[in-house]
Amino acid sequence: MKHTHHCAQLTSADIGSTSTLVGWVYTIRDQGGIIFVDLRDRKGITQIKVEPHDNATLGEQLKHLKDESVISITGKVSARPEGTQNAGLPTGQIEVVADSIEIHNIAATPPFPLDDEGGDKVNEELRLTYRYLDLRRPRMRRNLAMRHKVTKSIRDYFDAEEFIEVETPFLFKSTPEGAREYLVPSRIHAGEFYALSQSPQQYKQILMVAGVERYFQIARCFRDEALRADRQMEFTQIDVEASFVDREDIYALFEGMVKKIWREAAGVEIETPILRMSYQEAMNRFGVDKPDMRFGLELVDFSETFRNSSFKVFAGTVKGGGAIKAINAKGLADITQGELKSLEDAAKSLGAKGLAFIKVEGGEWKSPIVKFFAEEEKAALTEQLGLEDGDIVFFAAAEWERACTILGRGRLDAAALLQKRGKITIRPDDWKFLWVIEFPLMTFDGEAGRFVATHHPFTSPVPEDIALLDTDPKAVRGQHYDLVLNGMELGGGSIRIHQPALQKKVFEDVLKIPQDVVESRFGYMLRAFEYGAPPHGGIAFGLDRMVALLCGTTSIRDVIAFPKTQRGQDLMAQSPTPVTARQLKELHIQTVVPETE
Amino acid sequence: MKHTHHCAQLTSADIGSTSTLVGWVYTIRDQGGIIFVDLRDRKGITQIKVEPHDNATLGEQLKHLKDESVISITGKVSARPEGTQNAGLPTGQIEVVADSIEIHNIAATPPFPLDDEGGDKVNEELRLTYRYLDLRRPRMRRNLAMRHKVTKSIRDYFDAEEFIEVETPFLFKSTPEGAREYLVPSRIHAGEFYALSQSPQQYKQILMVAGVERYFQIARCFRDEALRADRQMEFTQIDVEASFVDREDIYALFEGMVKKIWREAAGVEIETPILRMSYQEAMNRFGVDKPDMRFGLELVDFSETFRNSSFKVFAGTVKGGGAIKAINAKGLADITQGELKSLEDAAKSLGAKGLAFIKVEGGEWKSPIVKFFAEEEKAALTEQLGLEDGDIVFFAAAEWERACTILGRGRLDAAALLQKRGKITIRPDDWKFLWVIEFPLMTFDGEAGRFVATHHPFTSPVPEDIALLDTDPKAVRGQHYDLVLNGMELGGGSIRIHQPALQKKVFEDVLKIPQDVVESRFGYMLRAFEYGAPPHGGIAFGLDRMVALLCGTTSIRDVIAFPKTQRGQDLMAQSPTPVTARQLKELHIQTVVPETE
Repeated sequence: MKHTHHCAQLTSADIGSTSTLVGWVYTIRDQGGIIFVDLRDRKGITQIKVEPHDNATLGEQLKHLKDESVISITGKVSARPEGTQNAGLPTGQIEVVADSIEIHNIAATPPFPLDDEGGDKVNEELRLTYRYLDLRRPRMRRNLAMRHKVTKSIRDYFDAEEFIEVETPFLFKSTPEGAREYLVPSRIHAGEFYALSQSPQQYKQILMVAGVERYFQIARCFRDEALRADRQMEFTQIDVEASFVDREDIYALFEGMVKKIWREAAGVEIETPILRMSYQEAMNRFGVDKPDMRFGLELVDFSETFRNSSFKVFAGTVKGGGAIKAINAKGLADITQGELKSLEDAAKSLGAKGLAFIKVEGGEWKSPIVKFFAEEEKAALTEQLGLEDGDIVFFAAAEWERACTILGRGRLDAAALLQKRGKITIRPDDWKFLWVIEFPLMTFDGEAGRFVATHHPFTSPVPEDIALLDTDPKAVRGQHYDLVLNGMELGGGSIRIHQPALQKKVFEDVLKIPQDVVESRFGYMLRAFEYGAPPHGGIAFGLDRMVALLCGTTSIRDVIAFPKTQRGQDLMAQSPTPVTARQLKELHIQTVVPETE
Repeated sequence: MKHTHHCAQLTSADIGSTSTLVGWVYTIRDQGGIIFVDLRDRKGITQIKVEPHDNATLGEQLKHLKDESVISITGKVSARPEGTQNAGLPTGQIEVVADSIEIHNIAATPPFPLDDEGGDKVNEELRLTYRYLDLRRPRMRRNLAMRHKVTKSIRDYFDAEEFIEVETPFLFKSTPEGAREYLVPSRIHAGEFYALSQSPQQYKQILMVAGVERYFQIARCFRDEALRADRQMEFTQIDVEASFVDREDIYALFEGMVKKIWREAAGVEIETPILRMSYQEAMNRFGVDKPDMRFGLELVDFSETFRNSSFKVFAGTVKGGGAIKAINAKGLADITQGELKSLEDAAKSLGAKGLAFIKVEGGEWKSPIVKFFAEEEKAALTEQLGLEDGDIVFFAAAEWERACTILGRGRLDAAALLQKRGKITIRPDDWKFLWVIEFPLMTFDGEAGRFVATHHPFTSPVPEDIALLDTDPKAVRGQHYDLVLNGMELGGGSIRIHQPALQKKVFEDVLKIPQDVVESRFGYMLRAFEYGAPPHGGIAFGLDRMVALLCGTTSIRDVIAFPKTQRGQDLMAQSPTPVTARQLKELHIQTVVPETE
C-alpha cells in the first residue's frame, strides 16, 4: 500500500519533496482556520498542516475526521515556521502540507485518553475491555516491543550456545496429585481427559534421554491457581535443559544470558559472577529465600545471647530449639501506631504471637519487654545492631524457619516505611542479582505427615548427602538453585536425578508416593531412564516477570498483550462462556452447576 | 561437568593429547581381546579403544557395559593404525585409548535398532512409545535440528523486517459454529468454558487495530478434527499480520521469507517473483487449487468440441452448463486392470459416474465410447492432447468444478503410475512454488442452503467486485492468496475487511449468520473496528508441513518431537486418561460415557 515514509522519518533534509504518510489521527487542532493534525504510526508522529480554504475536498473531509481515525495523506514536506519547531520530536523541524487525504476509517470517540498519564488513571477493567485502544498508548507499545526484544535476545543467545528449541506438547497427561491443572475432554476417548501442560519439565528430561543434550523453549504454561497480580492462567517460561552439566555450568550459562538481556534491553552491564548464597544464609540474614539485596536491614541472631536470659519467653524459645532474631529498622522510631499495627498483623499472619520491639528515643529504650533484659544483653543488642537514637528493633522468637520468615516480612515492610520517609532509596533499576543455592531437598509437610519435594521430585541430592536420605532426609541438600533479582525469583532449577533406582527410591521411600501412583504418573519416565539417561539439569525462568521488571512495571498484565483478569476473564473477547449442549455431548460431558451459590 | 571435547571434534592435530569425552555407547566390538567402543554424542562419533588386559578396572567395567549406556572416558588421542582409518567420519583418523571410564548409567537393550534403516522398519507405534530412543536416530536428530534452524531463520527474518512477535492467548472463547474445538472447563465460572485457540486470527486483527502494524508469531494451534497423516491435534503456525499493506506487499514479504528459509535450510536459491495463477486457471489446467507444477499432464477443455456431439453424454453435459475435460496420461496405455479400477474408484468417490478413457495402441483407439466420436472430434483430441501410440486419455464430463476436480485427482494418480514406470521423474527437492490467487470469496454450501466463506469471513473482496455482493455473490473474488509448493498448501491468507459496515454486511447479509450469533462471536471485533481499524492483511503458514518438506519426509509426525497418534494418543506419556471425581467436581462437570459402543 502506497506510503513513502513512516511517521518518525521526515527531517529537514526532506524539505521540498512530496511524501505520503499513513496512520492514526492523534490530535486535530484548529488554529485560526488552519488545521494541524498530528499523524501517528508505530514509529512516531508527524505534523500535518491542512489549509481547507484552499481546497474544498480537504475541507469537506476534515469535517468528518475525528481523533484515532485512519488516513493517508500526501503533501509537500515544509519547514515549520521559526519558533514552532519541536526539538523533542525527530520530525519536529518539518510539517507536511496536505495536498490530498484518503480516509480509511473514521473512529468513534475512545472511552479513555490514549496518552500514558490519562490512561493510567483509568480502571484496569476498562483498559482490558478496550485492550486494542489501551495498546495504542506509548508505554504499552514500548512494553510489547521490549518483550519481543527480550525473547529475540534469549533465542539468539541459546542458538549461539548451540541449544535447539524444541516444541513440546501442550496437551499432556493429567497429574492429579500436583497443582491444579486445566483439563481438556477427549472427543475420541469418551470419559478421558488431557491436561494442559503446567511446564515442559517431564518432556525436557525425556529430551535429554533422547540425546538432544541442549534444549530450550520459550513455552506457554498453564496453571489453574488463584490469580494474583503477578499470576496468569497462562504464562510464559524460558525453559532450558542440558546434559553433561553440573551446577557451575548452569550458573555460567545463565549469567551469560542475563548479561546479554540486560545489556541489550536495558543498556546495563551486569557484573558476573553473580553472588551466591546458601538457603541457610539467605534465611538467617534476610528471612526469605529470595532476598532483596538493594538494602541492608539484615536479621541478626541473638539465640545465644538469650539462651539463659531472665526474659523467659526468649530463653524458653531457645531452649526449645528455636531462635531469637532481631532487625534494626534504623531511623524508624517515629513509626505510627497504625503502621506498627500493620507490621504486627503481618507477623501474626505468619504465626507470631506478637511483634516485640524496642524504640530508642531521647537516649531511652522504650519497650514493654526491656525491663527483663540484663545489661550484657542490652550491650549485645546495641553493639551487634548498631543501635542509635531514632532506631527501632523488632524481634521474633520462634522455631528457626518461622522466626526468620516473620522478620523477613518485617524487614520488607520496614524498608517500605523507610523508603516512604526518604530515609532509604530502593531503585527499581538497581539490579541486584543473587543465586540462592543448597536448598533442603525435602520439606516436611506437617499436614500430610510426610516429606514433600522442596523444588520437585526430580531434583538430585548433593552427592555427599545421598547417604542421609535414609537416616536424616531433612538434612539432605538438593542441587537446586534459584536466580533472585530484587526480592523476586527470576528462575529456578536443579541438577536432576538421572539414576532410575535413585529416582524410584525418592518417589517411593522418601516421598512415600504409593507405588501405583508412581507408576501411573512417572512410570514412563522411570522406564525411559533405564535406557541410558545422561546426567542433566536445567532451569526455568518466568518471562513475563522478567520483562515486567525490565519495563519498570509491577504487573505482568502490562507486558502481556491480552491478559485475563484475576477472575480469569477475557473482558475484550468475553470468555469463558457457556457452550451448546451439542458440544458437550460430543465431548461426553455435562455440566453440574450448583443451583445456588 | 568435565569433558574436553565433543565426539566429532578430535582430529590428527590432537594426537598425543589427553581428552575426556562423554556420551552414549553406540557399538561395542571385541577384536581379539581389544575392545572398540563407538562413543556417540549429539555431534558425532569417536572411536574408543580399550585394552582390558592392561587394566583390571577397565576390564571389570566393560563386563557391564551395554549399547546405549552413558559413560565418560579419559584417554590419549592416538592415530588409528594404517588401513583402519574411516574417511567418512570427521574423527576417522584417530581413536582415544582409554585410561579410565566412568559409567553414568547402564542401558537396557533397546526394543528396536537405533540406526535410520533399522528404525524405519519398525512400526510407528513402537517408535512413539519409546520416542526417547526413536529420537536418538540420526535422521530424527537432524529433523529436530532442522526445525530449530527453520524457526530461527523465520524469526530473524521478521525481526529484520521490523515485525514484533506477540504472544496471543491459547485460552480463547468458544466459537461453536466453526470447526471442532477443544473445550476447557472453568473452575471459577461454573458451567462455562474456554476454547483452545484454533488460530490467532482474531487476536492478530485486534493487534492491527491496536496499532502494532507488524505482527508475527510462531504459534501453537489446536483443532479437534479427524487426524490424518498430515494433521495433529496441536500444530504450529507461522502467523503474520501487517497494516497498510496490499497483496503485492504480502507477496514480496513472503517470497523474501521463503527465499531465506530455503537458502539457509536447504542451500537452494528460490527464483522470485514466484509464479501466480488464478484459482480459475489452476482448476482449469490442474483440476485443483494447489497444483503440483513439477510435471505436466495438464487438463484440456473440450466442452466446445463436444457441444453438438452425437455422443449424447458429452453434448448433454455441455448443454446443461457443464464441462468436458480430458488429460493425456502419456505412455500409460499399459495401465493394468487393477490400476484402472483404482482410478475409476477415485473418480467415483468424487461424484463421477465412471471414468471414460481412450487407449491408443498399435495405431488404434481402444475405448467403448470412441465409436460415438466424429472425425473432427477425434482430430481435435489428437491435436490438442498430442496423442501418440501408447497414450491413454481420461475424460470427465460434469459440472465445471467437479469435472476439474475429478481429473485433478486422475492427473495425480496417473503421474504416480508413470513415475513408478520410470516414465516421468518427480523429485521431492524440485521446489515448484506458486501463488494461487483470486479465489471466489464465497462458496455455496448446498447442504446449508447458503453461502459460506471460502477462506474465512474476514477476507476482503477484490474492490471492483464489491458491488456484486448484493447481485451475484458467487462472482465476487476475494483478496485471498495461497502459497503452494509441489501440490501442497504451504500457507494462505488474505487482505482483510477493515470497514466495520462491510464486515457486518458480509456476516449478516451475505453469509446469513443470525445477528445474535454475529454479536456473540464477533461483536467485540466489530466494536473494535469502530475505533479506527487500519487496512491490513496477513497469512498463516503451516510450520510442521514446511519443515517436513525440507526434511524430505511426508509425515509431519517425523518433525514433531512428541506427536499424538491418529487416535489422539500420547503413547509414551500415556494420555488421555480418566481423571478423579474430585477433579471433575472442582470443574463442575461430569462424564457421560455410553454404556456400550
